[in-house]
Amino acid sequence: MKHLFTLDEWSDFDQTLADAQALKKNPLAQQHLGIGKTLGLLFFNPSLRTRMSTQKAAQNLGLQTLVLNVGQDGWQLEFETGSVMNLNRAEHVKEAAQVVSQYCDILAIRAFASLQNVHDDQAEKVLRSFMEYATIPIVNMESATAHPLQAIADAMTINTHKKKEYPKVVLTWAPHPKPLPQAVPNSFVRMMRHQEASFVIASPSGYALDPKLTQGIKCTNNQREALEGADFVYAKNWSSFSAYGQVLRTDDEWMITQEKMALTREGKFMHCLPVRRNVVVSDAVLDAPNSLVIEQACNRTYAAQAVLQKILQDG
Amino acid sequence: MKHLFTLDEWSDFDQTLADAQALKKNPLAQQHLGIGKTLGLLFFNPSLRTRMSTQKAAQNLGLQTLVLNVGQDGWQLEFETGSVMNLNRAEHVKEAAQVVSQYCDILAIRAFASLQNVHDDQAEKVLRSFMEYATIPIVNMESATAHPLQAIADAMTINTHKKKEYPKVVLTWAPHPKPLPQAVPNSFVRMMRHQEASFVIASPSGYALDPKLTQGIKCTNNQREALEGADFVYAKNWSSFSAYGQVLRTDDEWMITQEKMALTREGKFMHCLPVRRNVVVSDAVLDAPNSLVIEQACNRTYAAQAVLQKILQDG
Amino acid sequence: MKHLFTLDEWSDFDQTLADAQALKKNPLAQQHLGIGKTLGLLFFNPSLRTRMSTQKAAQNLGLQTLVLNVGQDGWQLEFETGSVMNLNRAEHVKEAAQVVSQYCDILAIRAFASLQNVHDDQAEKVLRSFMEYATIPIVNMESATAHPLQAIADAMTINTHKKKEYPKVVLTWAPHPKPLPQAVPNSFVRMMRHQEASFVIASPSGYALDPKLTQGIKCTNNQREALEGADFVYAKNWSSFSAYGQVLRTDDEWMITQEKMALTREGKFMHCLPVRRNVVVSDAVLDAPNSLVIEQACNRTYAAQAVLQKILQDG
Repeated sequence: MKHLFTLDEWSDFDQTLADAQALKKNPLAQQHLGIGKTLGLLFFNPSLRTRMSTQKAAQNLGLQTLVLNVGQDGWQLEFETGSVMNLNRAEHVKEAAQVVSQYCDILAIRAFASLQNVHDDQAEKVLRSFMEYATIPIVNMESATAHPLQAIADAMTINTHKKKEYPKVVLTWAPHPKPLPQAVPNSFVRMMRHQEASFVIASPSGYALDPKLTQGIKCTNNQREALEGADFVYAKNWSSFSAYGQVLRTDDEWMITQEKMALTREGKFMHCLPVRRNVVVSDAVLDAPNSLVIEQACNRTYAAQAVLQKILQDG
Repeated sequence: MKHLFTLDEWSDFDQTLADAQALKKNPLAQQHLGIGKTLGLLFFNPSLRTRMSTQKAAQNLGLQTLVLNVGQDGWQLEFETGSVMNLNRAEHVKEAAQVVSQYCDILAIRAFASLQNVHDDQAEKVLRSFMEYATIPIVNMESATAHPLQAIADAMTINTHKKKEYPKVVLTWAPHPKPLPQAVPNSFVRMMRHQEASFVIASPSGYALDPKLTQGIKCTNNQREALEGADFVYAKNWSSFSAYGQVLRTDDEWMITQEKMALTREGKFMHCLPVRRNVVVSDAVLDAPNSLVIEQACNRTYAAQAVLQKILQDG
Repeated sequence: MKHLFTLDEWSDFDQTLADAQALKKNPLAQQHLGIGKTLGLLFFNPSLRTRMSTQKAAQNLGLQTLVLNVGQDGWQLEFETGSVMNLNRAEHVKEAAQVVSQYCDILAIRAFASLQNVHDDQAEKVLRSFMEYATIPIVNMESATAHPLQAIADAMTINTHKKKEYPKVVLTWAPHPKPLPQAVPNSFVRMMRHQEASFVIASPSGYALDPKLTQGIKCTNNQREALEGADFVYAKNWSSFSAYGQVLRTDDEWMITQEKMALTREGKFMHCLPVRRNVVVSDAVLDAPNSLVIEQACNRTYAAQAVLQKILQDG
């Protein structure tokens, strides 16, 4: 069964990237591939870009879609094995996954980190349970620790705009008032292992990402030094990994500004959106021609479409 | 006008069952029947299986779908005649039903029992109002007292797995922490009147179903005796009918276990889902090869599809 | 870029009206016009008629649809320029509009008046922001001050039922327990400027509409006098414009009754729905053959379809 869980298990990264770029040029090229088939989209959390771009990708492939906002349209699911279900959870994922598998040909799922407990989030209970019990391919639309569709779209964006073989790419933490998951930076890090680039991760003290993921990658607490000569600046907030899920600071010292972008080599600015203006990044940077955030969002359609296409072709 | 309200008024039960089995073998056989037509789905209550399987059925027939979560996407409806609508209900069903009839060709509705008042629930105000005021066929996706699509799917399942002409079928009450409607057991009882079978209903004292429905059917308070030699065990919780809507007990004496299933003749286990594991039924029974619950859910698509097909053909 | 914001900027009113009537006779005549294209529907507020009729219109044209309940499926948007977004709004409309433009070919938006502040509502921040930042045509599905699709449907209805070249049309305020926007009456007034008719607006003291819109139109506080000899009576509640957003009275003196309709020349009764029975209008008037409310709702599909068709043809 071909799932997209994280990029680590997705063996076709380079092919998917090439497919995505081709589909961007000709979105309806494979519009008969999905005829008579159905993509289910299960949302345990809110979604704008992912919801719309993944549905659009499905439509471009001729797939029907069934959207379910779990909890809102349906009810809470139980994920523990052997539990006595006499509280608030009306259905076990074991049934839900098998049942939904009968109505759909592919199932895309969004289930964010709770940020309460590092072990629970790293266990990825929602995605792993569906991969275990469903009988159809599962596509990750952002799980507790990974957002691979975003990373594929980001890779497309970098490849389109890089002016040399070995660009400098900086992933920098940025401020945010609320605790956010590490899924996006995690997948960006995984994706960068497929790229020819000088890659640096900059974050304040206490905000190092999961060390298992960043092994061998240059990490620094000095944002300005990291930005020097950068070709791409990917800004993103995440909550602390070591003090798991906590917000350790909300000051604006790490906000991306024009003055900081001046340190780069006419660096392109990237962010996965939604972005809080004048908190994560100043208006001036976001509105400048070097900002690629809208193109990143555009590429989400073709990233999803390339993944769905591969799954349909292999099925 | 051909509505599916309860199986009592649906004259085509045997044909529908045959159609459903045929569609299961070839789901897209009638994919042009619904072209240019629209199925509306109105949900007054949550839904996972019914939402997805009924949409899937529509898609298999080439129907467009319009889904409305009433109250959440729209507003509360008024059902009383002559009321002065100066409180919380913004629209009368008389308008809503006529209006929706103009946007759809068939309208499927889910509106659960309130379990507050037996007369209100038996009046079936939501379904009956729509049948009165709408100008298009109405399909019951579970109303206060009936869930015919589930019963058709259950009949398909029994027919597929019965090993003799006259199997023993037991409908047994099972525990649950919350008050549940009687719609599923009611429709199961109605459906069983079309089956050649020895049919027994087992429930604890105080949990007899509506006596108008069970007239002439063997009912017992002795679950073990009922299970003896059973070919099919259909477990389901429902709240009390006589002490209307009440939960009289939550102990696990009536839970279906392996030890109880050993009383049967290698009986198949059935449940409409969602099911609370280790409350209604033990993990071991649900996970055994004799459990048919996933197949029952699968059959929901073709039950709905056969009903929609019949309505489209007659229209 | 061809937007439908208010009827004032929509240069094709007469053509659109003719197209809508033609589409009503043959809804699928242009069913290939939208193939491979997508209509996005963004709801900042609840919707039944508009949601279903606009989706139906899209389906009739072969358009795919992507529905987003903003805030419920996604998150709150920021509309202020230059704000430091460290509170509850996670994304700026500047990004949201550009992003959604990449997934859709046309974007329909519903965003009601807040009725808190006349300047805010008249600024029409939601619609104007999307028109500024989106790169695709925007269609108004009811904004703070306008509901043009309703007015086009109303014009269709009047044209179908008028028995003389120069009918008398009365727009009359009616009671309602809650503060309602002025969008519907505003657009009705704009639409009536395209009609050959004797047009009178009747409202109690304190309920005059925006004087910029009603300039040159006969306005009166005498409902009975206005109704005399009327061919069409359009009833609608709205909150006060001068005491902005307030409910000044809830008594039933202005409710439309049979006794009042007897003053008309067998006048037709109109209302945009949802309507509160026996508050805005009595059951007897609404249920009489002269009531056109269901036909008005029917026409919503073809009003939307004519607008979408024009946009697709011009694109």
